[in-house]
Amino acid sequence: MAQPVHPDSVPCPPDRLIAWGRACLQAVGVDETDAASVARSLVQTNLWGIDSHGIARLPHYLNRITRGSIKARPQIAVTPTGPSTAQVDGDQGLGIVVSHRANRVAIALARTSGIGAVGVADSSHCGAVGLYARDAAREGLIGMAFTHSDKIAAPHGGHVPFLGTNPIAMAFPREGGEPVCLDMATTPIPWNRVMNARREGHPLPEDVAVDATGAPTTDAHAAAALRPLGGLEYGHKGYGLALVVELLCGPLNGNLWGPQIGPMYAELTRPRHIGAFFIVLDPMRFAGGPAFAATLEQIARSLAAQPGEVLMPGDPELAEERRRRAVGVPIEPGLRDEMRAWSERLKVPSPL
Amino acid sequence: MAQPVHPDSVPCPPDRLIAWGRACLQAVGVDETDAASVARSLVQTNLWGIDSHGIARLPHYLNRITRGSIKARPQIAVTPTGPSTAQVDGDQGLGIVVSHRANRVAIALARTSGIGAVGVADSSHCGAVGLYARDAAREGLIGMAFTHSDKIAAPHGGHVPFLGTNPIAMAFPREGGEPVCLDMATTPIPWNRVMNARREGHPLPEDVAVDATGAPTTDAHAAAALRPLGGLEYGHKGYGLALVVELLCGPLNGNLWGPQIGPMYAELTRPRHIGAFFIVLDPMRFAGGPAFAATLEQIARSLAAQPGEVLMPGDPELAEERRRRAVGVPIEPGLRDEMRAWSERLKVPSPL
Repeated sequence: MAQPVHPDSVPCPPDRLIAWGRACLQAVGVDETDAASVARSLVQTNLWGIDSHGIARLPHYLNRITRGSIKARPQIAVTPTGPSTAQVDGDQGLGIVVSHRANRVAIALARTSGIGAVGVADSSHCGAVGLYARDAAREGLIGMAFTHSDKIAAPHGGHVPFLGTNPIAMAFPREGGEPVCLDMATTPIPWNRVMNARREGHPLPEDVAVDATGAPTTDAHAAAALRPLGGLEYGHKGYGLALVVELLCGPLNGNLWGPQIGPMYAELTRPRHIGAFFIVLDPMRFAGGPAFAATLEQIARSLAAQPGEVLMPGDPELAEERRRRAVGVPIEPGLRDEMRAWSERLKVPSPL
Repeated sequence: MAQPVHPDSVPCPPDRLIAWGRACLQAVGVDETDAASVARSLVQTNLWGIDSHGIARLPHYLNRITRGSIKARPQIAVTPTGPSTAQVDGDQGLGIVVSHRANRVAIALARTSGIGAVGVADSSHCGAVGLYARDAAREGLIGMAFTHSDKIAAPHGGHVPFLGTNPIAMAFPREGGEPVCLDMATTPIPWNRVMNARREGHPLPEDVAVDATGAPTTDAHAAAALRPLGGLEYGHKGYGLALVVELLCGPLNGNLWGPQIGPMYAELTRPRHIGAFFIVLDPMRFAGGPAFAATLEQIARSLAAQPGEVLMPGDPELAEERRRRAVGVPIEPGLRDEMRAWSERLKVPSPL
């Protein structure tokens, strides 16, 4: 689902943003291929309308690289651990670089043995997990991707942050079109919506946040934790999903978990030891495999014909991508300032 | 989470219920091993407090076996399709029998190659998916289980039923105790809560159901569809999860999907061609594997120490099991009548 956009944003052509991101990353020591991959991934995410995981995260990556908590040139190690599994050690590299690498391994394992599972240790923020799941689905496979983050969400029954927004992505090949991709946080809203509401003086929706005492609040300034998906009544489900993601990404790979994970925007010299997890499945190993993509298209048509307005997961992102490819990616004022400051610091021409 | 119990229920010792269920299944032609497995699985689910998937479903199974749409003695076929995958054809057998078999195959594949994925075709209602995920986790593995059902939930943006309550179970080994198990429908409430509310004249909770025109309703008699988890605002997430489960269980295995699936309690002579999907993962193939169960126990303690009352997924079921092992399984009046009728019909002594 497209996120709200700041009214004073100015549009920037995606190619110019990618070139800028690549140049900045190269300026802090990232090699050309990795720099291009990260810049493309971030701007692709902007095109989908998910600005929280787009080019706005680049200043954070640059910051951490220059402070030493993300390595510009990590020694990423892939250790096969069986016919269908591998462990990737990210060596505190850029999460997007490490995750693309791990996802490629999962794709290769799925081809040879039907399913591949790859865990990632010692990585960092990996951007939108939909990037990876969609990559697998574009090759006719079923992609699943998970990651975790520092504490933002209270567990169900509690009110102190413990888990991240721990997202889940699952993508499936669809005949004649882009993959169907569910890419969802396990909280109702992302934390950046709270930050935006603070800045712009908006109230929060009902039943998504609590204050420091645990009381429900719509006051963004008072919000101390997000509730999990499902809110007060059914939040045990969103909390359960977030915990499951935490277990797959954190403890299973020997990473930090929950409150152990350092904050994203503080302690910038401390590596975050964040994990991710990728499962890729080959539909051709199952009875419905040969017809799968066609059946999915049939289901999509059947859903589109329902009363109301029913979309497939990922359709809003694809519609937004078509729009933004024409009009450009909106860059909000705060980000514009950050981008100009980095341009100056790194002697890279500003795209704005 | 334990479900509401009818106030006029009477308790029955679990062993007596199991013996009755086994005898009834044998009386309609199911072999001794399968009959015992199904009866044990249903009563285990009652012990967890999930009465919607407990012994109350046995009359339904007996009904379909006697009408020919579930086979008492199916020829279940397991076809290996690669080092880590298999397809199981359930031959329209009892879903619990077929699913235990498929889950055992996934467990064996996980041991040999690190992860196993097994799809199930041509099966029937498989009971609580937590049964299978927990079985894997009790052996030190990570279990995932999915199934689908006939249409009950409206897709997000629509108001006509299209998908089932499509549940997800994931279970993890925990040191010194039973597995941690998330077992959740992708709707806020199950349909049987609507049926109970109709019978007992209670209103429904807010934001869980819509009437035939798509308007939100708390009137159980007017409810025509459930909303997905997340309700009006965030239901795209619950809908996305339900759809993902549908794709893994239905089209991937060549089964029926969504509105194609026959109703559970009607068209009793028509096989339902329902699927399921099992993924089992061996933690020992990942860097955190050796410490995994101990770390999970540490996380559980850390969560239990949070302000408020924070439980691990599956803890409420384990607490209910301890209670019900002592006081018995509550059998509500309607079920009691059904059980007595089947006892008489099959010449099996009633447990009540």
